[in-house]
Amino acid sequence: MLTGPGEISVQERDKPTIQTPRDAVIKVAAACVCGSDLWPYRGIEPIDGPTPMGHEYVGVVEEIGSEVTTVKPGDFVVGSFMASDNTCEICQAGYQSRCAHVEYVGAGGAQAEYLRVPLADGTLVATPGQPADDLIPSLLAASDVLGTGWFGAVAADAGPGKTIAVVGDGAVGLSAILAARELGAERIIAMSRHESRQKLALEFGATDIVDVRGDEGVKAIKELTDGYGAHGVVEAVGTQESMMQAIRSTRPGGYVGYVGVSHDVELPGEELFFSGVHLHGGPAPVRRFLPDLIERIWNREINPGVVFDLQVDLDEAAEAYRAMDERRAVKALLRV
Amino acid sequence: MLTGPGEISVQERDKPTIQTPRDAVIKVAAACVCGSDLWPYRGIEPIDGPTPMGHEYVGVVEEIGSEVTTVKPGDFVVGSFMASDNTCEICQAGYQSRCAHVEYVGAGGAQAEYLRVPLADGTLVATPGQPADDLIPSLLAASDVLGTGWFGAVAADAGPGKTIAVVGDGAVGLSAILAARELGAERIIAMSRHESRQKLALEFGATDIVDVRGDEGVKAIKELTDGYGAHGVVEAVGTQESMMQAIRSTRPGGYVGYVGVSHDVELPGEELFFSGVHLHGGPAPVRRFLPDLIERIWNREINPGVVFDLQVDLDEAAEAYRAMDERRAVKALLRV
Repeated sequence: MLTGPGEISVQERDKPTIQTPRDAVIKVAAACVCGSDLWPYRGIEPIDGPTPMGHEYVGVVEEIGSEVTTVKPGDFVVGSFMASDNTCEICQAGYQSRCAHVEYVGAGGAQAEYLRVPLADGTLVATPGQPADDLIPSLLAASDVLGTGWFGAVAADAGPGKTIAVVGDGAVGLSAILAARELGAERIIAMSRHESRQKLALEFGATDIVDVRGDEGVKAIKELTDGYGAHGVVEAVGTQESMMQAIRSTRPGGYVGYVGVSHDVELPGEELFFSGVHLHGGPAPVRRFLPDLIERIWNREINPGVVFDLQVDLDEAAEAYRAMDERRAVKALLRV
Repeated sequence: MLTGPGEISVQERDKPTIQTPRDAVIKVAAACVCGSDLWPYRGIEPIDGPTPMGHEYVGVVEEIGSEVTTVKPGDFVVGSFMASDNTCEICQAGYQSRCAHVEYVGAGGAQAEYLRVPLADGTLVATPGQPADDLIPSLLAASDVLGTGWFGAVAADAGPGKTIAVVGDGAVGLSAILAARELGAERIIAMSRHESRQKLALEFGATDIVDVRGDEGVKAIKELTDGYGAHGVVEAVGTQESMMQAIRSTRPGGYVGYVGVSHDVELPGEELFFSGVHLHGGPAPVRRFLPDLIERIWNREINPGVVFDLQVDLDEAAEAYRAMDERRAVKALLRV
């Protein structure tokens, strides 16, 4: 629970129960702290009283509502942070995070022992069996950061022959590098000024590192691409500077995939018009990618869980927040 | 020539000549007045002394530079308003209006007897023969408004099964309706409050008319689409209101194709992020579409030339500007 700026406390709460026939209750195996959790933690986003935190989770189904058919008690599941029916026209087009009946799964707080997941059939995906312990961090990553980075890379049109740049070296940006590699990008330019993150970027498939940003960063990308700019750029920060850096680093007709939640961004229409880029992003429809991501993780083709550079027990959640707030950790996993 | 706000004068000027081996000089058969010509005409965009006007043209090749190989004297040609080499990576990807060696063809003024066209091989497309007189308006439309509307419809992902809305009922918006129909859209909603333009919209393939705009317009589109919003929206105005109307009328995951030149537009990042739309537009790469458009016109499959509801001789250019400025004409053709 977040009880005030910088105040995380672990409290006994009532166990969530099935509230509609389409709900499931899961016993959480692992959860984690998201960059977006830091906005209220830092007091920048106000909270309305004590607030359950967390929206990234993996766990075992404990109980299901009478209409749930695709998961059953005992299944190990991964779910998206947005609940979706997966049947409406928006879901069918692959935009489950904007489902006509969307609900925020994090409302109940995923950093907990148990979590109610609405619209379970359209939100949760069961793994082929009980996962080995060492797969849990990667499966947990799939529930948000990997799915989000993957969406960014898809929106940036990553694929064979393409040069993709990634603005932002947090867990999402790093995951986007991994996604771009898996999607077959020829060249992947990580924009990062932190040595430890550069190292992880290279491990995930970056072929080049650019350690300057803003206008200098744009210039560096142009120099690496015969003056044209990258074919696609993933924006994984959400500020005015990072958005403009992404747009200006992209060649005319290229693709900007932006997945950093926008904060105080205003895009100048005329510059955007003459840039000629494709701009696409928003809250990632993680559910679209989950079956594929789970398969790649299960088959040990990818290991996105290495973004968790801190693991603590749920009781020590306060330390996880502090470490991320102080940038001592890229991403903290909470063992439940 | 535009000599000051509201002042169009027809003057004797030197005949343009070949300046580089890649140039062509054409004898203009017809030109026209663009909505964008009205900005300097109205004094909103300043001019730096007397300015040759016009960038839309069809005509007969008079002379070519030594390196020109794809058109020859006597060919009837249609060209884009932006000259492109059609060989650089940007052109090859279909974004000729942002060619690495782009030049503005209108610099010399297409509302004239003769026009120098730079990069002739990459800019001009010859028709299969000398066109019948009644095809000339349609071929002229292809050089800008049709090509621009077509790009808008492509950017809005118009195609079978799709509901496409068009914001703006000028020549470009009307052309986008025609394009959406040709691309197979199932339903085409024209947003127009002018009876004469509504009529043309229906002739071009609109299936529904919405005669309110702003929030009311958005509401009307949602009501016509089961609450989801259109699959794609073409924006053909370029104002803050029309851009927001287009974005808000599009369903999450849908496509906004914006081809109205942006004037004083600022897009709010957070709303755009959560809209989940694809946003793409800019100066249309008309050259990409010209071969296809010429073929459709030549075979009399489409008749985009009906957007010209005023035809005058070049000598009467001032009247063409006045008629468009006063909204007595949608689009004026100048016979040369």
